[in-house]
Amino acid sequence: MAPSFTVTSRFHESFTRSALRSYLAEFISTFFYVLIVVGSGMSSRKLMPDASLNPTSLVVGAIANAFALSSVLYIAWDISGGHVNPAVTFAMAVGGHISVPTALFYWVAQLIASVIACLFLKVIVVGMHVPTYVIAEEMTGFGASILEGILTFVLVYTIYAARDTRRGQVSSTGTLVIGLIAGAGVLAAGPFSGGSMNPACAFGSASIAGTFRNQAVYWVGPLVGAAVAGLLYDNVLFPSQNSDSVRGGVSNV
Amino acid sequence: MAPSFTVTSRFHESFTRSALRSYLAEFISTFFYVLIVVGSGMSSRKLMPDASLNPTSLVVGAIANAFALSSVLYIAWDISGGHVNPAVTFAMAVGGHISVPTALFYWVAQLIASVIACLFLKVIVVGMHVPTYVIAEEMTGFGASILEGILTFVLVYTIYAARDTRRGQVSSTGTLVIGLIAGAGVLAAGPFSGGSMNPACAFGSASIAGTFRNQAVYWVGPLVGAAVAGLLYDNVLFPSQNSDSVRGGVSNV
Amino acid sequence: MAPSFTVTSRFHESFTRSALRSYLAEFISTFFYVLIVVGSGMSSRKLMPDASLNPTSLVVGAIANAFALSSVLYIAWDISGGHVNPAVTFAMAVGGHISVPTALFYWVAQLIASVIACLFLKVIVVGMHVPTYVIAEEMTGFGASILEGILTFVLVYTIYAARDTRRGQVSSTGTLVIGLIAGAGVLAAGPFSGGSMNPACAFGSASIAGTFRNQAVYWVGPLVGAAVAGLLYDNVLFPSQNSDSVRGGVSNV
Amino acid sequence: MAPSFTVTSRFHESFTRSALRSYLAEFISTFFYVLIVVGSGMSSRKLMPDASLNPTSLVVGAIANAFALSSVLYIAWDISGGHVNPAVTFAMAVGGHISVPTALFYWVAQLIASVIACLFLKVIVVGMHVPTYVIAEEMTGFGASILEGILTFVLVYTIYAARDTRRGQVSSTGTLVIGLIAGAGVLAAGPFSGGSMNPACAFGSASIAGTFRNQAVYWVGPLVGAAVAGLLYDNVLFPSQNSDSVRGGVSNV
Repeated sequence: MAPSFTVTSRFHESFTRSALRSYLAEFISTFFYVLIVVGSGMSSRKLMPDASLNPTSLVVGAIANAFALSSVLYIAWDISGGHVNPAVTFAMAVGGHISVPTALFYWVAQLIASVIACLFLKVIVVGMHVPTYVIAEEMTGFGASILEGILTFVLVYTIYAARDTRRGQVSSTGTLVIGLIAGAGVLAAGPFSGGSMNPACAFGSASIAGTFRNQAVYWVGPLVGAAVAGLLYDNVLFPSQNSDSVRGGVSNV
Repeated sequence: MAPSFTVTSRFHESFTRSALRSYLAEFISTFFYVLIVVGSGMSSRKLMPDASLNPTSLVVGAIANAFALSSVLYIAWDISGGHVNPAVTFAMAVGGHISVPTALFYWVAQLIASVIACLFLKVIVVGMHVPTYVIAEEMTGFGASILEGILTFVLVYTIYAARDTRRGQVSSTGTLVIGLIAGAGVLAAGPFSGGSMNPACAFGSASIAGTFRNQAVYWVGPLVGAAVAGLLYDNVLFPSQNSDSVRGGVSNV
Repeated sequence: MAPSFTVTSRFHESFTRSALRSYLAEFISTFFYVLIVVGSGMSSRKLMPDASLNPTSLVVGAIANAFALSSVLYIAWDISGGHVNPAVTFAMAVGGHISVPTALFYWVAQLIASVIACLFLKVIVVGMHVPTYVIAEEMTGFGASILEGILTFVLVYTIYAARDTRRGQVSSTGTLVIGLIAGAGVLAAGPFSGGSMNPACAFGSASIAGTFRNQAVYWVGPLVGAAVAGLLYDNVLFPSQNSDSVRGGVSNV
Repeated sequence: MAPSFTVTSRFHESFTRSALRSYLAEFISTFFYVLIVVGSGMSSRKLMPDASLNPTSLVVGAIANAFALSSVLYIAWDISGGHVNPAVTFAMAVGGHISVPTALFYWVAQLIASVIACLFLKVIVVGMHVPTYVIAEEMTGFGASILEGILTFVLVYTIYAARDTRRGQVSSTGTLVIGLIAGAGVLAAGPFSGGSMNPACAFGSASIAGTFRNQAVYWVGPLVGAAVAGLLYDNVLFPSQNSDSVRGGVSNV
């Protein structure tokens, strides 16, 4: 990842065996993350007449998000870096932690995984619709995007902290706290903007549900929030003499 | 576990002191896992007229599964390897991490433990039935088996990741994230196929309830999903030069 | 703690500075554990007309127990050994990990702490009663005691595993999984026997509520279950060449 | 932090680059903590007609507090020390772990962050009020302050334990257990005094809601409880030969 690498060599870097394993790891983790998050939304809808207005469905959504994200980051952590979210990959690319071609393949793996997970749910649960993220009447689309962006900021910031090798002993709980802050975000934003914080999740459910209404809300805010978080962490809050202190994407294991 | 071991020596290996302790550890952990999972289902049924349609019982089931599995894996981790699930043992045997005779004794310990746990619940709570896993009307048996298999895939994949000694510092939270992904599976699959992910749990409750309807659903999917997860992890995703990097079953402590 | 110690020296051992700090640590941790467990029961009763029949109060009770126990064990872990429960202290004394006089002072600290915590709640929340553990109509007192004893067994077994220095890297999550198994026990036993698993908690609430009905249920089962768990762990499941592998009570920090 | 430092040098110490980063880290973590805690209260209010009397809103509040605090402490842990609470900063200053000028800047960062977080919520969620902490009819203001103080005591005590470098391997779960005890406090105190345990949170929501009724309750109790916890830990419970064993505020990374 040294700046002297040429574009060609960086592109080749995207096809090494470890890079291909990274894409597969991102695919698997994103598939299961979306399966749990969207699947638990369908569970809520099956049990509750109007789940989007039921407080227990808020608890279900929050712990599904927290439990799933902690786990799928854990299994991808030492292979792909554990992004499982196009916004995280975007921040890592903006910050120079992974190359742009690699980031694009990460995005492709994440988006395809999300679409397939939602398609799987639609096929396997006969007669139920795949739910999409909805913005409350109290919110403008602009406000919803800012809220999603702010929550993605803290999510990405936490990921940077968890991958920072300079951190002390509490860092071993990294994937857990990332899951917890995602679950907390759902609790705060669920009834207002849905608490997606992940463009892949919004894209997959919208693709299968067949409606891309407000899709931009779940891309613009999170991508901007993620990039700002990464830049702030690297350059202001915890700047590094050693460029390797935040480990980015492709591992060399 | 070297391939030059003869069948006889591998069979003897199944009766060493540490092997016998492993079977006892599997028995104890499976007993308590099933006691909590089935017991919390009975708690829900006692408090709610129709618990299978009540969203709070979904939360109860999910956190009971997550809390119990994390704990019982933790206590068996350094003794038996922490399978507590015939599907996990099957994957470990298919991948060559434990011998077939040892795997069979693991299965026996797990199944007996589950039956005894359910029998204990039936005897001690006078007048209540032991609940079994039910498939929703929206689902076919085939679909339910695939759903259970997919969720068992990620469970076993997470167990492989947690036991991989090449993993970095986040691996110390291994038993916690395994519990979390199991709880997440319940949230996504609970109202559709029950979210068993564990043939022992399904077998024990069916044995005591006296109905083996759809029992194959809770065996075929999970066993196949588990084996595929193990083979994929070992051979594609994180192949190892050192055959000991995923520690399988019987410890030598 | 060597067997050649005379009774006198062991008695003196109970008055060293580190022993006195241990009693204080047990007092503080037990006070807060009981404050949270009984206080959350009062919260449930304030919000729900008949909390003992409400499923959300089961969730409240389970996560209060899990969250509180993980934390109060954590803060006492390196000072007193983190018992916070007369049944744990009993098992440690039976297994020879702490001396009998020290165990008695631990009991005194735990019981006084529990009574004061319940008294504090009664005084500060004007006009509400302190709730006590109740046995469901489906249960006999004998059955309830066995259920409480079985759940205390796995709790103490988990504590032994968490303190075992031979355990690998997952052991750093020890206080968390102890809390989780306690919360899981509440989910399984809550509507049947209350899920106390801790005689101090039962004693304190009964003292302030003024009714010792069924109190023996919450002592006999847990004490027997705890002792069996400790003896089984030490002698059968994970016997030690080195008598210090399970660290008992008073630390020498 | 040696006592021979003059006031001037200690004041200069408050403007080093690492000190400024600490204030920013406190600002960011407090902003997100308040955003989640107050935001989840608004989520509850949107979904439930009278959320303050609804048991599910108690669960939402508790897990929002636990999830958020664990995460925001984690990300600030190695930068500012992870206070995120004026009561914690007060205890650290009383105990001499950080200088008074630095503590004042911490307070400023925390209070401004809380006000901005609440203002952000009010602006972005059109037409909803920012909720404030309420004292139940069963409670006196004095009782509420004692309850909040007692819960802040155990919170600060846990923070001291988590930062103590003499602690063993379980200490790596430090930020998690601090979050758990905060969540447990909400479960016990929620319907009685709100379970704030954090003057910044109470101040921010009161500022934007425009009512400072009972504000003193949420300052006096927590500040006294925090200071007592710190002094007791340092001087009685776990006194140190080495004054650096509890790491206070500004890191030198």
